[in-house]
Amino acid sequence: MQIKAKQIAQLINGSIVGDPEVVIHGPSKIEEAQKGTITFLANPKYKEYLYTTEASIVLVDKTLQTERQVTPTLIQVDNVYLALSTLMELFGSKISIHSGIALTSIVDISAKIGKHTHIDDYVIIKPDVTIGNNTKIYGHVFIGDKVTIGDDVILYPGVKIYHNCKIGNRCVIHANTVIGSDGFGFAKDENGNYKKIPQTGNVVIEDDVEIGSNTVIDRASIGSTVISQGVKLDNLIQVAHNVHIGNRTAIAAQTGIAGSTTIGEDCIIGGQVGIVGHIQIADGAMIQAQSGIGSSVRSPKSKLYGTPAIEYSNYLKSYAHFRNLPDIVHQLRSLEKKVNELENNKTE
Amino acid sequence: MQIKAKQIAQLINGSIVGDPEVVIHGPSKIEEAQKGTITFLANPKYKEYLYTTEASIVLVDKTLQTERQVTPTLIQVDNVYLALSTLMELFGSKISIHSGIALTSIVDISAKIGKHTHIDDYVIIKPDVTIGNNTKIYGHVFIGDKVTIGDDVILYPGVKIYHNCKIGNRCVIHANTVIGSDGFGFAKDENGNYKKIPQTGNVVIEDDVEIGSNTVIDRASIGSTVISQGVKLDNLIQVAHNVHIGNRTAIAAQTGIAGSTTIGEDCIIGGQVGIVGHIQIADGAMIQAQSGIGSSVRSPKSKLYGTPAIEYSNYLKSYAHFRNLPDIVHQLRSLEKKVNELENNKTE
Amino acid sequence: MQIKAKQIAQLINGSIVGDPEVVIHGPSKIEEAQKGTITFLANPKYKEYLYTTEASIVLVDKTLQTERQVTPTLIQVDNVYLALSTLMELFGSKISIHSGIALTSIVDISAKIGKHTHIDDYVIIKPDVTIGNNTKIYGHVFIGDKVTIGDDVILYPGVKIYHNCKIGNRCVIHANTVIGSDGFGFAKDENGNYKKIPQTGNVVIEDDVEIGSNTVIDRASIGSTVISQGVKLDNLIQVAHNVHIGNRTAIAAQTGIAGSTTIGEDCIIGGQVGIVGHIQIADGAMIQAQSGIGSSVRSPKSKLYGTPAIEYSNYLKSYAHFRNLPDIVHQLRSLEKKVNELENNKTE
Repeated sequence: MQIKAKQIAQLINGSIVGDPEVVIHGPSKIEEAQKGTITFLANPKYKEYLYTTEASIVLVDKTLQTERQVTPTLIQVDNVYLALSTLMELFGSKISIHSGIALTSIVDISAKIGKHTHIDDYVIIKPDVTIGNNTKIYGHVFIGDKVTIGDDVILYPGVKIYHNCKIGNRCVIHANTVIGSDGFGFAKDENGNYKKIPQTGNVVIEDDVEIGSNTVIDRASIGSTVISQGVKLDNLIQVAHNVHIGNRTAIAAQTGIAGSTTIGEDCIIGGQVGIVGHIQIADGAMIQAQSGIGSSVRSPKSKLYGTPAIEYSNYLKSYAHFRNLPDIVHQLRSLEKKVNELENNKTE
Repeated sequence: MQIKAKQIAQLINGSIVGDPEVVIHGPSKIEEAQKGTITFLANPKYKEYLYTTEASIVLVDKTLQTERQVTPTLIQVDNVYLALSTLMELFGSKISIHSGIALTSIVDISAKIGKHTHIDDYVIIKPDVTIGNNTKIYGHVFIGDKVTIGDDVILYPGVKIYHNCKIGNRCVIHANTVIGSDGFGFAKDENGNYKKIPQTGNVVIEDDVEIGSNTVIDRASIGSTVISQGVKLDNLIQVAHNVHIGNRTAIAAQTGIAGSTTIGEDCIIGGQVGIVGHIQIADGAMIQAQSGIGSSVRSPKSKLYGTPAIEYSNYLKSYAHFRNLPDIVHQLRSLEKKVNELENNKTE
Repeated sequence: MQIKAKQIAQLINGSIVGDPEVVIHGPSKIEEAQKGTITFLANPKYKEYLYTTEASIVLVDKTLQTERQVTPTLIQVDNVYLALSTLMELFGSKISIHSGIALTSIVDISAKIGKHTHIDDYVIIKPDVTIGNNTKIYGHVFIGDKVTIGDDVILYPGVKIYHNCKIGNRCVIHANTVIGSDGFGFAKDENGNYKKIPQTGNVVIEDDVEIGSNTVIDRASIGSTVISQGVKLDNLIQVAHNVHIGNRTAIAAQTGIAGSTTIGEDCIIGGQVGIVGHIQIADGAMIQAQSGIGSSVRSPKSKLYGTPAIEYSNYLKSYAHFRNLPDIVHQLRSLEKKVNELENNKTE
């Protein structure tokens, strides 16, 4: 595949700085790029590479200022990542599984499978399952009784979906993720032994949700655990029973959300965050990685950090003093000494 | 299914406040409940719903005080969750897999399988495995050489159990959890390369243990990693080699326990806790989520928080001052100024 | 199997203290050891067991001093763990899967499989895969299009490897680990919805790498996520897209590394550590468990702790004062009082 800078600029609605006729054949990373490739500069930390890269074309933000001469042709765009996304589809090495149902899959006769849906080897589909059109189900996937799955969904190898759960349209779920296992609910009986509280609800995943690998979303004890439209979850995330996650909220890897908590829309939650149960997080919250959220977050667009989390910049200020505590305590000690001397002088 | 308040009260040993003849047909959540359903109030945070819910019956703690008139019939019980547990079994949508051994399962001829035990499609069972009665093994489960599994066990889809491990009676293990993988043991050789220390022990899981999804319990290097009777582990937990967890201890999601640590009985450990290796945790310890336990906990029923963890209320006190450090430092600065002035005055 | 102390000493290049003729038949743990077994003392915390153990032989470090008479024969070695590693291979209960390709495995006809390589039941191998010699692939493994796998590799049950990834020689990957799932890359479009950035790169795992269970290594967006020669990763670890991990670095369970970060050689990283994206960690860094690394670590062999992490011993000093903050604030308050009194005296 060969494509010119001017053709690319047209595709992604960009402006050209440099030679519009230069030709590239594929993508590359800015620090390793060779002639004949296109790369991008999204993070200003990498700006120096602009002057040394051998790439023929670089996608840049239209606000980027260059201080020196650059060799590659630049294509200026509104949003580098978005342009990149569009562009990468041109080069994406699509690994498609063929349409059809593998002979080795075990599909219950009561299951309804849509058109152009592919089911790969060793998939197990239980009674009363409904699956839409153009959906791809990779090998070793398990789909429990009465599950419904929409159109244009991709379930990667080893995904396990327990009974009664619902998956919307255009969802992507990566390998070995588990949807709908029992919530962690036990009550101590009179002898101090735990008795299981039956988890009779389900998980509802709305449209356009993507979920990473080895993540777990537990079924509700009653009702539904809900992952709303457009949510993006990374790998190894824990979502407990009866949690609700609002539209378009994105959560990074290894974060855990305890039972019955409701998270608003358009939140951005870092990795390894812990959120306690039975609280509400307002829309647009930004939570720094490794924070621990111990109580409801009432103000929209709050920015939080720490365990338990406080306002982001306040945490940084307090932490700067924390680092300085040995000095602070030393200063307190010399002050005490001075004051004692002053007192002694006074009483002399 | 239709059942009256007075019948329910009898089943769960509760006292009725309101109409004993009211009929319900299923469970609901208090904030979404409709007429003809039963719900519950366990967390006092939700008390306001008592006055607005449309549920016909609400399970409440017998100590709960109401300030105003309530519409639904109340059933007062000693322990709401325990009553709920009993009750939910009435409504539980049981998804049973049928008895028998699926034709597609690969069961070694040396394996001994008990009565009424079901083995689902694409299960692999290696030589010299022993499985008890009434056990259910879902699809894509792998059971290695010489594993023994008790009666009334449920292994959900994708569970992998390495050779020589032992699972007791009435255990439940959720999807894609791994039991018995090698402990993380390496020694550097003279060239600075890691050499693997063989992990020749196993994992022993006693009776009545429940384990969530995508959790990992490593085999001992020598001897056994032991999960004792009645332990409950949530999802995505790491249990390293040679760990012992005492009877009835419950551990929330994403917690990790390093090698050779012994945890007492009846401990309650929050999510995302980290516990270092080679220490002992006394019985009944309560460890707050995200804490880091760096040394042995000697006193039973210790309540801990922080990294490294200290006594729970002390952490909260110190953290309150941490939040206030900018003010504290400011006060220290003005005090220094005052003292300097006093000293200057003195020397004038 | 029966073996004498003098034979063992010869095997592991050790010196005998005690009876060289004593015979043992297997390994044991020092606190549970019985007559006729060999055990070891690596952690000085367990030294007391030396005087009470019933083991017939104990491996000890040659620098170990004994204060009293010991009953077992001691074998003194340079490195207990390394000697143990050599020795355990003698006793290791090898559970080998037989050579050959199981009838139930689905191996595409275009795949090239080496000599003496075993492929177990229900494995799926896609087109254009290349696998070396003497490799063992357990049940329920999925290997995507164009994957290459070296010689002497072990893939445990349920491992999923996405298309185009490369695995070197002598690698071990434990159960249900996922290699090559999509990196977490999305860009917001003009309507505030996330659009996926295609992840067209791969994962390259070099020789002699071992990876635990339920770990996830995401494919690069462009280029490769690289796990270099001799790296050891524990269970439940998150490695994001475009991360590079240097030779022989070891990382404990539940640690997460965000996108495009480069980690040096010979680092030792504790459990539950979080490392942000787009930074460099110098060679030989030691990072304490649960730390959060928020910026590049420039000095080799840095020792770090805290969130955000600072120099290890400084964190401990600051944390000691943190624990003491209630007292410190109390002292500040009494000092303020004294100073106010001094000021009042002055103005009187």
